[in-house]
Amino acid sequence: MCAKKVAISIGDLNGVGIEIALKAHNTIKNICDPLYCINDTMLEQAASHLHVTIPKDFAVLHVNGFFTIQPGSICASSGLYSYLSFLKAVQTAEQKKVDAVVTLPIHKEAWMRAGIAYKGHTDMLRDYFNRDAIMMLGCDAMYVALFTEHIPLKEVAKSLNVQRLSTFFKDTIQTTRAEKIAVLGLNPHAGDHGVLGDEETIITRAITAVNSEYSTDILQGPLVPDIAFTPHTRSQFTHFIAMYHDQGLAPLKALYFDESINVSLNLPIIRTSVDHGTAFDIAYKHRAKEQSYLNAVKAAINYSLL
Amino acid sequence: MCAKKVAISIGDLNGVGIEIALKAHNTIKNICDPLYCINDTMLEQAASHLHVTIPKDFAVLHVNGFFTIQPGSICASSGLYSYLSFLKAVQTAEQKKVDAVVTLPIHKEAWMRAGIAYKGHTDMLRDYFNRDAIMMLGCDAMYVALFTEHIPLKEVAKSLNVQRLSTFFKDTIQTTRAEKIAVLGLNPHAGDHGVLGDEETIITRAITAVNSEYSTDILQGPLVPDIAFTPHTRSQFTHFIAMYHDQGLAPLKALYFDESINVSLNLPIIRTSVDHGTAFDIAYKHRAKEQSYLNAVKAAINYSLL
Repeated sequence: MCAKKVAISIGDLNGVGIEIALKAHNTIKNICDPLYCINDTMLEQAASHLHVTIPKDFAVLHVNGFFTIQPGSICASSGLYSYLSFLKAVQTAEQKKVDAVVTLPIHKEAWMRAGIAYKGHTDMLRDYFNRDAIMMLGCDAMYVALFTEHIPLKEVAKSLNVQRLSTFFKDTIQTTRAEKIAVLGLNPHAGDHGVLGDEETIITRAITAVNSEYSTDILQGPLVPDIAFTPHTRSQFTHFIAMYHDQGLAPLKALYFDESINVSLNLPIIRTSVDHGTAFDIAYKHRAKEQSYLNAVKAAINYSLL
Repeated sequence: MCAKKVAISIGDLNGVGIEIALKAHNTIKNICDPLYCINDTMLEQAASHLHVTIPKDFAVLHVNGFFTIQPGSICASSGLYSYLSFLKAVQTAEQKKVDAVVTLPIHKEAWMRAGIAYKGHTDMLRDYFNRDAIMMLGCDAMYVALFTEHIPLKEVAKSLNVQRLSTFFKDTIQTTRAEKIAVLGLNPHAGDHGVLGDEETIITRAITAVNSEYSTDILQGPLVPDIAFTPHTRSQFTHFIAMYHDQGLAPLKALYFDESINVSLNLPIIRTSVDHGTAFDIAYKHRAKEQSYLNAVKAAINYSLL
């Protein structure tokens, strides 16, 4: 079997991404052919800051541009370069020249300063492909797909309706191929029979509709949100659907912070990502951990085999 | 030093509480003088269902009433009896005849069927003492105080204001005597500079006001909610303030489900509780775990020594 080709979007070069890519290269080249979206000048500059030698087989997909790396700084030129690296990776995957894209972290404010209007990678992919990308985070032990993501908490409840939920549930089932998925309620105690909120009736209707389409109870819930991730309950599921960002990600990161990755589902390309930020406070200090990145590469390969 | 006297509110007798109390008696009598709010007839009935012998030194504070125990059933008479047991414990503590109250789980719907309008113990205590009781859950590794509790998610954001937050912060500081407290933001990424919600400005104003009153930065935050409970961040705090129920309790229960307890702060009496429900599915099956109860008794003793 040929090794899978994976385009690596290099992330914000003022952050920890490039350090992780260089450090993990010898490991990941054994499981895929990585192609790093950067250029030689920027790569040499980063390696020089890190006092490391660039591996001879560190293959580059050329991304135009130059700026002076300032470890730990939010800056427009670094934001722009990280966007161009991401765009290169996505286009290359779209052209089927690679099997998947793995992204290293970008900095949202740096994107903003560069005039890039997206809140993050997933937002850009949604727009680029005009598809409802699903954001799912996790690791082998537990994946959480987010029904709502980067919206204020006060807007979450009004975002729920049977139609949108049903579509999201079906897309999640089809793209994860999970056989059983836990769906969380919205309110404390899942509403306690309507006493603490009634959106659970909407969630229940969507669950019932989708399960009946599949003629099996793939979706289970709505689960009581603060019970769903207790040891006994989570041992029964590998996939969860959370109604909002922190409902799913706070427990996930409490349990599996270092291992977790981010997957974009429901798109024409496969894209996984580390589940951490640019970590500007430790950039170029040889303190960044690569476990999330290694898991992201492995997941990208696995999804490209599905 | 005299042993502390602790009144045990016996909980819903159709649930796991009485089993736990009987099983743990020999352990807890070594650290305090427990007084069980029940009566001999009900106690004998429960012991007979469990096929266990009642310990000779199992001291009872008599609570009137009789009904037939039906393990695992939601019923009005069991709801009423659990309320009367709780009331007895609270009154005894109010009269200073005991040093603290520990509560075993009641069933909210059973209380509702018995015509008791409270959503739980904390609600009743708030009404009984006409004080803003603070609900805090956790264990030695991590305590979480809840700014809002049993309200629908959609009402959380509008509950935040500087005045209420400041009072809550000060009450938490005074009753926990914690030297450093992590305060969570409300929105994903703590609002990301206002892009994902702006309630963090309210939280920040309250933090600043309270810290300046104490002339020290006791309160830290607002923290990004899905980062607050990661290993590195939580290692820096023992006390957290969550803006809403599941924000604090989902991570807490993911990490420390079996050990956690519930403490009511800011009241004239000391009250702790197990952090689990009546577990009707395993009632009278000798499968209930007593760790949370043991921790609740220990915490009650510790708080009565403060």
